[in-house]
Amino acid sequence: MIRTGETICAPATSGGGAIAVIRVSGQQSITICEKLFYTSDKTIRLADLPGYSVVYGDIRSDDEIIDDVLVTIFRAPHSYTGENSIEISCHASPYIQRRILELLLLYGAIPAFPGEFTQRAFLNGKMDLSQAEAVADVIASGTRNSHRIALNQMRGGFSAEISKLRSELLHFASLIELELDFGEEDVEFADRNELNAIIIKIKSLSDSLASSFRTGNVIKNGIPVAIIGKPNSGKSTLLNALLMEEKAIVSEIPGTTRDVIEDTLVIDEIEYRFIDTAGLHDTSDIIENLGIKKTYQKIEEASVILLVDECDDSAHLINKRIEAIRALIKESGQKLIILINKSDLSTPEKTGSLAKKIKIDEKEELLFISAKEKRGLDFLRQKLSETVEKERLNSESVIITNLRHYEALVHVSESLIRVIKGLEEKIPEDLLAIDIRQAIHYLGEITGEITSDEILGNIFKSFCIGK
Amino acid sequence: MIRTGETICAPATSGGGAIAVIRVSGQQSITICEKLFYTSDKTIRLADLPGYSVVYGDIRSDDEIIDDVLVTIFRAPHSYTGENSIEISCHASPYIQRRILELLLLYGAIPAFPGEFTQRAFLNGKMDLSQAEAVADVIASGTRNSHRIALNQMRGGFSAEISKLRSELLHFASLIELELDFGEEDVEFADRNELNAIIIKIKSLSDSLASSFRTGNVIKNGIPVAIIGKPNSGKSTLLNALLMEEKAIVSEIPGTTRDVIEDTLVIDEIEYRFIDTAGLHDTSDIIENLGIKKTYQKIEEASVILLVDECDDSAHLINKRIEAIRALIKESGQKLIILINKSDLSTPEKTGSLAKKIKIDEKEELLFISAKEKRGLDFLRQKLSETVEKERLNSESVIITNLRHYEALVHVSESLIRVIKGLEEKIPEDLLAIDIRQAIHYLGEITGEITSDEILGNIFKSFCIGK
Repeated sequence: MIRTGETICAPATSGGGAIAVIRVSGQQSITICEKLFYTSDKTIRLADLPGYSVVYGDIRSDDEIIDDVLVTIFRAPHSYTGENSIEISCHASPYIQRRILELLLLYGAIPAFPGEFTQRAFLNGKMDLSQAEAVADVIASGTRNSHRIALNQMRGGFSAEISKLRSELLHFASLIELELDFGEEDVEFADRNELNAIIIKIKSLSDSLASSFRTGNVIKNGIPVAIIGKPNSGKSTLLNALLMEEKAIVSEIPGTTRDVIEDTLVIDEIEYRFIDTAGLHDTSDIIENLGIKKTYQKIEEASVILLVDECDDSAHLINKRIEAIRALIKESGQKLIILINKSDLSTPEKTGSLAKKIKIDEKEELLFISAKEKRGLDFLRQKLSETVEKERLNSESVIITNLRHYEALVHVSESLIRVIKGLEEKIPEDLLAIDIRQAIHYLGEITGEITSDEILGNIFKSFCIGK
Repeated sequence: MIRTGETICAPATSGGGAIAVIRVSGQQSITICEKLFYTSDKTIRLADLPGYSVVYGDIRSDDEIIDDVLVTIFRAPHSYTGENSIEISCHASPYIQRRILELLLLYGAIPAFPGEFTQRAFLNGKMDLSQAEAVADVIASGTRNSHRIALNQMRGGFSAEISKLRSELLHFASLIELELDFGEEDVEFADRNELNAIIIKIKSLSDSLASSFRTGNVIKNGIPVAIIGKPNSGKSTLLNALLMEEKAIVSEIPGTTRDVIEDTLVIDEIEYRFIDTAGLHDTSDIIENLGIKKTYQKIEEASVILLVDECDDSAHLINKRIEAIRALIKESGQKLIILINKSDLSTPEKTGSLAKKIKIDEKEELLFISAKEKRGLDFLRQKLSETVEKERLNSESVIITNLRHYEALVHVSESLIRVIKGLEEKIPEDLLAIDIRQAIHYLGEITGEITSDEILGNIFKSFCIGK
């Protein structure tokens, strides 16, 4: 549901912390806030203040003082939403926030849906749809790379170019449709060479963006890693050792440690997500029993599989396990790293002899580690890091991370292949026009030039409240 | 450790949410922020802007854009801390916050200790110590009453009056000490009647504030309630029934539900804390076996004890349990409420007959309820509510909630009793002066006119980062 007339309000910060911010946006924002806000200087009225100014005062409900607050005023169109907006910065008490929100509702505001502020920014032309979508990604991004891509998209990124190419294509579509109006007269308003050139340009961009999706997805969602192995081989010790070192690195700045996500590891700004690590602590995860559905699933979901064995195991058994997993992953491109743990309990001679007997493919890796004594972990990190194609990351090329964009781009390319083929085969203009229109449609879906309530609803429902 | 020269920085909001605020305070705030902040209009410099203005721009690290932000400028002394301050409002991504903090540190800011912003506000005379202490209480307050008391204290409350009376007393102390200088000459600069009057005034205030501490403590920390009873009597069903209704009430405004604290119930703006409710789900909590330490402890900590029995129990057994608890609580003033649960499984005749046979004191309560069908809960809420002295809450009288203040006030009163007695008995001026000085000392500890690094350290370490 799209609402534009109402003034919306919501907390923009989450529970905890020292201060909280409550956002109000809509035509009545200033009028509504005026009713609950009091300054010691009675001559100051919010309605008289220019945008981008801050006032100190109280929020009151009748005679009860709710809090000392700072109020920031934004005036349309110079605000995030493009509407008149107010940000109330109060103490981060749940009680205070609730009371301020209650007062705002009392004086005529309505509670905002998740993402409704950004939706309004889109509807008021402050950003296109792909920029709006990137706002949630910017907030969620936890690594340098995911942040860079999301921020780039939020600040315009590829959508400006798509929008430009789309309007060129739209121009040709109109010309071709004009030709149709002349029916039998065989006129040709649209220069077929120019049309071909622009279509090839768009297809090349579309293909390149679509092919960046795999990398983009890795950057946005991390690389799924499965740790498997027989009971007591040290799987959870390994995971803890990796995560503990990571936490120690992240916690240097006060107040930032709480954001470390459990069971993810960042190496070289790429996130590795350990799949279903809760299961590491039970004993059902037995590699001998590969029939177990859970292990199957783990391997299926993972891009990297860490098989943990022990120095005490026989080479025969280890090879059998490797073969079993190899049979499962086949040609999937999943990376298998074999970790022989507890090297601290073994001698160099024994591990050397074991190493010779273990048979691995050239795409696989074999590492001797001691999770307990944190030996070999740097080498493991390096191997994990090598699983990612780094070329794309280091280039300045644009990367897409959004499944909706990917799907639209695939449709664009499909339509354009038909157009190119149609031009070669000189098919009738009306058929050509249909395919061009389809490409235009899908390009427009990315930027939001073509949209529906349903698409908008789907996009913004995944946002947090207050954004 | 008190640092005043450095410029401090910290996140002021906690993880999650749509936006995050980073605070910077100290002489170099504006200079430091200038180095990482860029606006599209190159002529705008933070250093040129007046206080209480907001600018939109980017945070950059070399060529990398970290985020689009709003920067608010405050100029000394018109800021929270009384120093030059900056608030950076960015997207609430952990990565962005970390990067901005890293840049601030790079350009010369240092990470703030918990409460250091408020400590600076105190040191710069923006508030006295009891006001500063109230800031943490304002943030933590979850009910109307705890909020009102904390806010009242933060905005000046009783400390202005204490400070005024203290300086009057200080005046008399000086006069008496002057008399000492004259040694044998038997002069009397300090009018003993006036001195007596001011001392009685201070003692009366001090006594009244100290006696408000019990109520204040209830308001601030809630009333501890123990639910005890034999296994399967419906203790956890009862707790869930009470809490579920509470949650339904609180969750009307989006974004505020997450702040509901587990296992606390708010009735008439007073919080009831259920003690050790985790234990409700095990079977070891057997009232027959009152020797169990856990049950003892629960009863000891509680102000209200809910004994849950069943309609099916014999009156004899129920009476035995009541007597056992009564023997434990003796004259402690703890309230015992006996709940006969599962009334839905009984008939009015049976419950009526049971009610007649159960022997309770006049201070105790007997209620028949059905936790499962939520019958009798309103009545239980009413009985809980009656356990609080409401007179004090409804009056406008000042209430203290801080143990440190309470202890200081008790010391004040003790010293003043000695002064009053000394005046009656006409003891030598030097002894009188000691007691007066002691009262002055403790009065000064409340407002912070007398303080030590240790006291300050203790107070502010319980604050959150960024406040």
